[in-house]
Amino acid sequence: MAKLPQKLQIIPLGGLGEIGKNMTVVRCGDDIVVIDSGLMFPEDDMLGIDLVIPDISYLLDNRDLVRAIVLTHGHEDHIGALPYVLKQLDVPVYGTRLTLGILENRLKENHLTNAQLVAVTPGSQIQAGAFTVGFIRVSHSIADSVALFIKTPVGTIVHTGDFKLDQTPVDGKVTDFHRFAELGDQGVLVMLADSTNAERPGYTMSERSVGVTFDETFRTAKDRIIIATFSSNVHRVQQAVDMACKYKRKVAVLGRSMVNVVNIALELGYLNIPEGVLIDIDQINQYPASAIVILTTGSQGEPMSALTRMAMSDHRKVDIVPGDTVVISATPIPGNEKLVARTIDYLLRQGADVVYEATSGIHVSGHASQEELKLMHNLIRPKFFIPVHGEYRHLKKHAKLAQDMGMAKENIFVAENGQVLEFTKDRGMIAGKVTAGNILVDGLGVGDVGNIVLRDRKQLSQDGILIVVVTMEKQGGVAAGPDIVSRGFVYVRESEQLMEEAREKVKQALEKCQTNNITEWAAIKNNVRDALGKYLYDRTRRRPMILPIIMEV
Amino acid sequence: MAKLPQKLQIIPLGGLGEIGKNMTVVRCGDDIVVIDSGLMFPEDDMLGIDLVIPDISYLLDNRDLVRAIVLTHGHEDHIGALPYVLKQLDVPVYGTRLTLGILENRLKENHLTNAQLVAVTPGSQIQAGAFTVGFIRVSHSIADSVALFIKTPVGTIVHTGDFKLDQTPVDGKVTDFHRFAELGDQGVLVMLADSTNAERPGYTMSERSVGVTFDETFRTAKDRIIIATFSSNVHRVQQAVDMACKYKRKVAVLGRSMVNVVNIALELGYLNIPEGVLIDIDQINQYPASAIVILTTGSQGEPMSALTRMAMSDHRKVDIVPGDTVVISATPIPGNEKLVARTIDYLLRQGADVVYEATSGIHVSGHASQEELKLMHNLIRPKFFIPVHGEYRHLKKHAKLAQDMGMAKENIFVAENGQVLEFTKDRGMIAGKVTAGNILVDGLGVGDVGNIVLRDRKQLSQDGILIVVVTMEKQGGVAAGPDIVSRGFVYVRESEQLMEEAREKVKQALEKCQTNNITEWAAIKNNVRDALGKYLYDRTRRRPMILPIIMEV
Repeated sequence: MAKLPQKLQIIPLGGLGEIGKNMTVVRCGDDIVVIDSGLMFPEDDMLGIDLVIPDISYLLDNRDLVRAIVLTHGHEDHIGALPYVLKQLDVPVYGTRLTLGILENRLKENHLTNAQLVAVTPGSQIQAGAFTVGFIRVSHSIADSVALFIKTPVGTIVHTGDFKLDQTPVDGKVTDFHRFAELGDQGVLVMLADSTNAERPGYTMSERSVGVTFDETFRTAKDRIIIATFSSNVHRVQQAVDMACKYKRKVAVLGRSMVNVVNIALELGYLNIPEGVLIDIDQINQYPASAIVILTTGSQGEPMSALTRMAMSDHRKVDIVPGDTVVISATPIPGNEKLVARTIDYLLRQGADVVYEATSGIHVSGHASQEELKLMHNLIRPKFFIPVHGEYRHLKKHAKLAQDMGMAKENIFVAENGQVLEFTKDRGMIAGKVTAGNILVDGLGVGDVGNIVLRDRKQLSQDGILIVVVTMEKQGGVAAGPDIVSRGFVYVRESEQLMEEAREKVKQALEKCQTNNITEWAAIKNNVRDALGKYLYDRTRRRPMILPIIMEV
Repeated sequence: MAKLPQKLQIIPLGGLGEIGKNMTVVRCGDDIVVIDSGLMFPEDDMLGIDLVIPDISYLLDNRDLVRAIVLTHGHEDHIGALPYVLKQLDVPVYGTRLTLGILENRLKENHLTNAQLVAVTPGSQIQAGAFTVGFIRVSHSIADSVALFIKTPVGTIVHTGDFKLDQTPVDGKVTDFHRFAELGDQGVLVMLADSTNAERPGYTMSERSVGVTFDETFRTAKDRIIIATFSSNVHRVQQAVDMACKYKRKVAVLGRSMVNVVNIALELGYLNIPEGVLIDIDQINQYPASAIVILTTGSQGEPMSALTRMAMSDHRKVDIVPGDTVVISATPIPGNEKLVARTIDYLLRQGADVVYEATSGIHVSGHASQEELKLMHNLIRPKFFIPVHGEYRHLKKHAKLAQDMGMAKENIFVAENGQVLEFTKDRGMIAGKVTAGNILVDGLGVGDVGNIVLRDRKQLSQDGILIVVVTMEKQGGVAAGPDIVSRGFVYVRESEQLMEEAREKVKQALEKCQTNNITEWAAIKNNVRDALGKYLYDRTRRRPMILPIIMEV
């Protein structure tokens, strides 16, 4: 008997209610394709964590059904989890050339060399199990971005990827409006669309408008120009290079990821730098300051980045000097505001002129604003709509926008990671839930840091730790100690009396245990912890971690 | 021989290159007055710190010369250090009634009851040593704010305090333009002026414009209205109350600081609430939801605030329910963006409508924008100018603005905390440096947490701690252990093998010490630390703190 899969499932494993770790599962019967596999940068309370990736238990449980991973573009929040995912899942990965170029570099860094990467061109389509997946050109803050359509036995899905509708893109490659229109005409069952800027009225400015600001800066800058931006924004880099050519300056590239991406983009032909313009960073002093542009990383004030090191006079190769013009061509990502502000302040203190967001049109967003979203809705006219790629308020706002445009409320799904959204040709519903969540990556450890470890790090970070060591005889008496060692609590040399009294409190607690015949170590430890904790809180209003250790001789 | 003080010194002890802990010393011969004594909230890297106050060593060294502390207004960054300062300095404090009302409450919380607080009215002046200090009404985001003039033997100083030039203030009490004009006419030697919004072109909107947005919200809200704002913004609170009266709603007040300030403002007559409008929070369920307004704290997403607790379903008295309209009438202070965003998301998840900054004119700044600053410069026409109250880029921008208005560059001082700015009638110069800096307050400890403790907290927060305990015989052999205890490193139950191998590494290190006749404890500890540190880094790419403890029996 032939199996007729009548139900289409869409399962977001990441990217809903958060900016980051975008990953969406599409399943129909025994076929699964996965859209993107991104990472997320840790929240403030994830102390010591390097990055966060989606929990892919669902995919591992159904590993035989996964036909492909398809990528929309090369940003970390869409491809950054692949070094971890591909270690566990051996499936072909489809993406455009620049996307795969960036991915390959990331995989190499993670010693993964046998991945099946298949390059596609915008406009093409592939077959993956029961699905036909097509790639549609869109504009975004990285070159070679695509939206996807997925033709399934139940109906067509359109996933916009990250997009804006730039009418004058730097590379001249306009969003494929015709394909979207055609799909809309043929009928789309479900649309998933970017919600990042759903709160912003109007249109997002064209990337080209940054070029105008660059021109003004290049025209007036006296000495060196140092431009910090996202390395992946190849079009921004191209515009900086174009200006360098126009104003007869040489370009040096600084910062690991900037060097990497520029090399990849050059190699693949996404970046065009005339012969003789690019120089090595070690050559900059062979030219007058007025003939130099440095392209670098650090637009987010990241402490280890090239720009931050320069600002702090801590860079091996470049010092900021009066006369330098530093252009920070980026907006602080939420959470980075203070880091960026600090970098600006240090650059100003070094005497540089700094061009940054509050004072100029030096950056534009890569995401569609409300009027662009509306156009996409009007082109696609989907039956069902799932806002994706956004924190909860962005998804809500995007849902509201769809409703205001006439869509029925029950056809819009503001979903959560892990929810199973099930569609037939006529109906959509939330049909269940699968495992989804955050896997924390700390150094080489993937998932070995959980809530207990984070809770301990939090307490340690707030008030430090006191370790109480006692050596006890087998018979029960104290053989040595108690000794108290503290870290991150008080500066001990200035608090000798406090520590001496603390030791006295521990002694008393131990004596009390002996008097009361308390011999269980766990009980003794609790008594010590309680007595010392109470004393310290009374004296300091702090609650350091207290760790009693009993040794037996 | 009479002593003729010919030099005027202005010494900022806080508030320059930072937003917070505003404090400025004015000295002429043997007379000192201090302007404001504010606190600063800790930077991200000041782990566990509650607040930061200025180092007042200079004042303590010259305690006999301090004639008065004069206050511009009642915000924390202007009065918050006084509970600490007044414990060490017994001098009269002058401020307007609301400022002192708020201060008194803060002093009481810190068990300080014998402070000499002297109330002044805008327009009045006092004598303090060789100085005449006058108080000039200005508009700001707290009622009863004043600028200061200080007549000194060398010349007149004008300190604007925090100000905006609201032409239609809620209480009708307009900035005293005439007094500023008169001072300018008479001649001002030095002006110190608010730089917070020096980057913003144009004018700051009137506080009244928020009332218009409130009106629209009240007109359309179905059920309860919950307004979160800064408790000290009495005019904002007044506008919410006025709307409640207009739309026949009762007002309940929630959150400790909101209750405190509302009580003080009512008592002193700065807030006008008609009989019968104010109800207790426990009474809200006696009225229909459409007849309730709740005024509360938490507009910055502070984790322990009333609004955040409501959003998290963690408040004892109020649950957010669908139909509630929550108004966040504030802008996130830099650094709080993510906390505020998270609060909004949780409120939306509970089903509330949320009115917040990105979508509406629900907040205005309390600080002057560029056109207002220019007007102040044109009114005062000072000989010398010191931009204050701002991070470095704000001070720079304000200096640039003054220069663009025709002031000579050498008459403008972008200074640093602790610098001694010295003025005669004709000349200004940087004449030296006094002690200035951050004193960290952690619980009851004032200044007992310094760089070493913070560095330890940082390391503990990133990778946790491993404690290695060994008991050794007096003769040198190992009597017990080594035992390893970890916190904040890995979840031990899932990493048993790692910990077992770590213990083996320590054993080997100890044996090697014995073989090589290393008996110094410090050397043994170093060997253990190195061996274990290297092993853990190789295995995990983490660098936890390693704390070897040797006990002797």
